[in-house]
Amino acid sequence: MAADLESVSSRVLEVTELSYPVASSVIREIVLAGGKRLRPLLVLLAGRPFAYDANFDELVTAAAGVELLHVASLVHDDTIDRAALRRGKPTLNSVMSVGGTILVGDFLFAQSAMLAARTGDVRVVAVFAGTLGQLCDGQLLELFDAHKTDQDVEAYMRRISGKTASLFAGAAEMGAILGRADDQTIAEIRAFAHDIGLAFQIQDDILDLTKSDDVLGKPAGNDLRQGTVTLPTLLFAQRTARNSEDWSLLNHVISDDEISDDDVNRLIERIRLSGAIDDAAGTAERLRTSALARLDTIPDNEHRDNLLGWADLALSVL
Amino acid sequence: MAADLESVSSRVLEVTELSYPVASSVIREIVLAGGKRLRPLLVLLAGRPFAYDANFDELVTAAAGVELLHVASLVHDDTIDRAALRRGKPTLNSVMSVGGTILVGDFLFAQSAMLAARTGDVRVVAVFAGTLGQLCDGQLLELFDAHKTDQDVEAYMRRISGKTASLFAGAAEMGAILGRADDQTIAEIRAFAHDIGLAFQIQDDILDLTKSDDVLGKPAGNDLRQGTVTLPTLLFAQRTARNSEDWSLLNHVISDDEISDDDVNRLIERIRLSGAIDDAAGTAERLRTSALARLDTIPDNEHRDNLLGWADLALSVL
Repeated sequence: MAADLESVSSRVLEVTELSYPVASSVIREIVLAGGKRLRPLLVLLAGRPFAYDANFDELVTAAAGVELLHVASLVHDDTIDRAALRRGKPTLNSVMSVGGTILVGDFLFAQSAMLAARTGDVRVVAVFAGTLGQLCDGQLLELFDAHKTDQDVEAYMRRISGKTASLFAGAAEMGAILGRADDQTIAEIRAFAHDIGLAFQIQDDILDLTKSDDVLGKPAGNDLRQGTVTLPTLLFAQRTARNSEDWSLLNHVISDDEISDDDVNRLIERIRLSGAIDDAAGTAERLRTSALARLDTIPDNEHRDNLLGWADLALSVL
Repeated sequence: MAADLESVSSRVLEVTELSYPVASSVIREIVLAGGKRLRPLLVLLAGRPFAYDANFDELVTAAAGVELLHVASLVHDDTIDRAALRRGKPTLNSVMSVGGTILVGDFLFAQSAMLAARTGDVRVVAVFAGTLGQLCDGQLLELFDAHKTDQDVEAYMRRISGKTASLFAGAAEMGAILGRADDQTIAEIRAFAHDIGLAFQIQDDILDLTKSDDVLGKPAGNDLRQGTVTLPTLLFAQRTARNSEDWSLLNHVISDDEISDDDVNRLIERIRLSGAIDDAAGTAERLRTSALARLDTIPDNEHRDNLLGWADLALSVL
């Protein structure tokens, strides 16, 4: 599988060569950094064993498209976040870099769409375009729901379904389609990947509150600082009396412009003590269990084991 | 044709309904403002008369996709331009609006890709994705070539080919494909639309230097202010001695951060007097003539007349 993933990376790098060395090297860096490559791996694994060899080239192309879509959305995310960091601070990014990163992100979206089109499969292209739409919907929801302390679990789930789970679901569906799975199996694999995606995001949200800065590579409580209400915070808010000190602290951190590290750390401590993190972890665990149960219908043992292995990799905390 | 264009607009509005009233109404406004609707009109006209009625629904879908792609790229353009305006000025856009417009643009790209996929035609989807890629390439070129006075006509042509002509070419090709034209005719109609697109952009560049502020709805010399070197400016630069006052003025306006209205107006006057504008107009006219000549091979008179009429509309100055 490692060699197959290398084929995916090569294809990604191939289509991201730009005539501007600056932009090219930035993209190269992002692509090669890579991480676990969960999404392209999922395309390949979902495409097994139905027609793996016969459609290998299309699977690699689709996997490269999915990875590139992920990278493109990261580029725009970073642009938006840096814009957010800039708040109240006139320095930071040069204009070129905001305009440039918007366009580089667009360019990567275009390349990913071209890869999807290159599979020559209309269904794959439709899934790809739909996934992009859900991704944007999730990110828009996050933007519009930011800085609000009164939220319900349903809205949170819709948000992470779009922002994170949609790409997992789309990757699995594209792979299964190209692997010529039957419709029932395609639907099960898609639903499995979607729910693992939800669990993955909840776990990521929890990590932001429980891990030290060193492990995360970014300051803990980053979501809180950005005014993003994740599941643990949301559950904490639901069990907090509206006239309490905790409620005031929460609203201050989530809604106000100027917040101190001390406020953030105090809030993290309060959330930890409330049991909200354990409850969020329970939700993730339930999603994982029901996702895995969906694989029972897959006839091929090796195929099922591959997907189970992928889920373990996705949810392993490093 | 007006009714057919209405069908296109309805389809565009249908897919741009968002769950956030703010974003929805902004998009609605942009879509309804519309202008000449040259691009969707071209899809429809290029699709005639080969199989217009049989494929009418697909043609409307493709035309809506093309229009939406255009709107999406305008949204990102505006974001980039507003970022540029902000240069050195810490006020202006709130963070929400930069992040929001990036995501709204992405959402519109996604919707346009979904419409392209909805045609169910792999070739159309491939043209669509390729067009998006060329569009981004042209805009990146413009960004990277900004503020440089030493440029050649070839680089300028590549830039406007991507930025403007690619979408005209793609619209024509998608229409002709869905209209079941033969490959030779598809290629000719595409090349025709591409070159009309080049002429259209050169004309737009000229207008920026010759029309009054009132007519343009934006200050004349806008390109110069943004450091964008268009064809007349480029031709002016080529005929200007490197040790002259004109050269200093040109470099000041194109490259420096702080420029006065007076400097811009003086430069416009110098460009006008140099004959560079007439030469640029000559280039546009040659492109128009050779583009129209391509239509000679189209067997159907009415179809040819429709495309001639479209070219007139595209190049008419209102």
